[in-house]
Amino acid sequence: MREFELIDALRRRLVAARPDTRLGIGDDAAILAPPPEHELVVTTDTLIARRHFPGDTPAFDVGFKSVAVNLSDLGAMGADPAWLTISLGAPALSGPWCDAFIDGALAAIGERAVDIVGGDTTKNDTLTISITALGLVPRGAALRRDGARVGDLVAVTGTLGDAAAGLACWDTRRPAGGDEAMLIARLTRPSWRPGARVRGIARAAVDISDGLLSDLGHILAASAAGATIDVDALPCSPALARYAPDPALRRRLQATGGDDYELCLSVDPADLAAARGALDCPLTVIGRIDREPGLRLVDSNQNPLDSALFRHAGWDHFDGR
Amino acid sequence: MREFELIDALRRRLVAARPDTRLGIGDDAAILAPPPEHELVVTTDTLIARRHFPGDTPAFDVGFKSVAVNLSDLGAMGADPAWLTISLGAPALSGPWCDAFIDGALAAIGERAVDIVGGDTTKNDTLTISITALGLVPRGAALRRDGARVGDLVAVTGTLGDAAAGLACWDTRRPAGGDEAMLIARLTRPSWRPGARVRGIARAAVDISDGLLSDLGHILAASAAGATIDVDALPCSPALARYAPDPALRRRLQATGGDDYELCLSVDPADLAAARGALDCPLTVIGRIDREPGLRLVDSNQNPLDSALFRHAGWDHFDGR
Repeated sequence: MREFELIDALRRRLVAARPDTRLGIGDDAAILAPPPEHELVVTTDTLIARRHFPGDTPAFDVGFKSVAVNLSDLGAMGADPAWLTISLGAPALSGPWCDAFIDGALAAIGERAVDIVGGDTTKNDTLTISITALGLVPRGAALRRDGARVGDLVAVTGTLGDAAAGLACWDTRRPAGGDEAMLIARLTRPSWRPGARVRGIARAAVDISDGLLSDLGHILAASAAGATIDVDALPCSPALARYAPDPALRRRLQATGGDDYELCLSVDPADLAAARGALDCPLTVIGRIDREPGLRLVDSNQNPLDSALFRHAGWDHFDGR
Repeated sequence: MREFELIDALRRRLVAARPDTRLGIGDDAAILAPPPEHELVVTTDTLIARRHFPGDTPAFDVGFKSVAVNLSDLGAMGADPAWLTISLGAPALSGPWCDAFIDGALAAIGERAVDIVGGDTTKNDTLTISITALGLVPRGAALRRDGARVGDLVAVTGTLGDAAAGLACWDTRRPAGGDEAMLIARLTRPSWRPGARVRGIARAAVDISDGLLSDLGHILAASAAGATIDVDALPCSPALARYAPDPALRRRLQATGGDDYELCLSVDPADLAAARGALDCPLTVIGRIDREPGLRLVDSNQNPLDSALFRHAGWDHFDGR
């Protein structure tokens, strides 16, 4: 399929629906009309085959995940997602592959009013998807990393460690049981959390892409604070509990596993009930913001754990991993 | 250099300067405050080594060109550039390479108030740069492709064909004369045109990235019109005139060569002087918008030229070129 035909085929599927999308795909650029009294939140994330997802990931899941990780960043800012641009590079592109990719992208958007307003397709040696997501927040209302205060509760949405276990399951997934399928789905089709619901409630937020300890570290650094985390309090799915009955393995998957795309929030204890009421998913308290810098890990008996057990947390694309 | 160190090093160089950049690099996303009564113009362009630029292009030029082609799209919409995100994928990244890349990116921005507010660095088999550029226009004032009207003049900024000749010179550039160096510079460091200057003057605009005939075709399709173009009127640099004394070669380079990043405008004849006065570069009339659909090419004596001589105009990333 020639590029121009491919772009035409994609364009027909990507009809802009938002009233504030003045001009979608088809000119040198899109024209958007952000509402007054709002700020624009902008994030970019690139996903590369065999680095950010297994090389044999189906096109639907590639589309889903690429969009979800970007919408997750908007959620972590408390923004309502509004627009996306998608750059797709691949050794070859077929109509059916692109259709499945767009199906996945649209599934990640779900019922939200998000328009895909631009992008490009290019030949590249390795499948590479680069997405920019634009969201909206009322002026001054964005959730940032630097708002945590001593005494806040640290809380996370959903469950942790599933995606890391899913990655471990990936190569052995046939024949797969229900647990493996669920863990893999958490890897390939992560649910991003609509952090806009806790705008004005949470004090700080980050999404968990690189692993809890790594990402919470960003809140601590930006807020000039420390935290004590009860590793046994990390929320665990039934599938992960069965997959990793060894507590040491489970703790490690939950504390350092990437790709969960849950939110980690810093919340005033007085606002915890409001945060729980606002979210459409479980919110679990896992620790507390301290004055003393650094991250202290404890077990359910408040006994300190050696943080060296949790090293190599987070992704680093150039350290040879 | 580890990714986090690299990002820190880049971040130190990319301090946000615009007052409407509320939060630059360093959180899950940037926070921007577009001014009231304005619309946002958004474009994304990806450049890939050995496809969009020679594999041995210096880092400075890679940074320059990647930014310039995106700012060119904003210019073609009549937008004032405001913000960029830059995704950089490479087999390996060194501090000096990144510094030179950013030097080039900042040189393409020049004196304009443009903040780099996000992006990422990832390992990729092939050097891949994906940029999203955000610009601003007063509400309803963007230049679009669909505004051309029968009787308009077709005009182009600067000179055409230089970049295509520069690409032909690339492999033989040592020892290079002044002409070759100038033509190569047009390829690697294209001047993007601030189309905001002809906002409210030109009726339609497109930037010439794929070649004049291909890109003018977008205006004609969007405006449901045709055009007659005098191929001998295409503006020619002295360097190109010396490099391509054969008229057939020169016409072909000028009419179909990509990468010039000049603007092609459709202008009411009554507004030509205003357009020339507003721009900071030459504006040459090359033809006229007609009622009859399609593109007719003539020479300086108004004799028709066979358009088959100008086939294969424009880039197509998946047609095996």
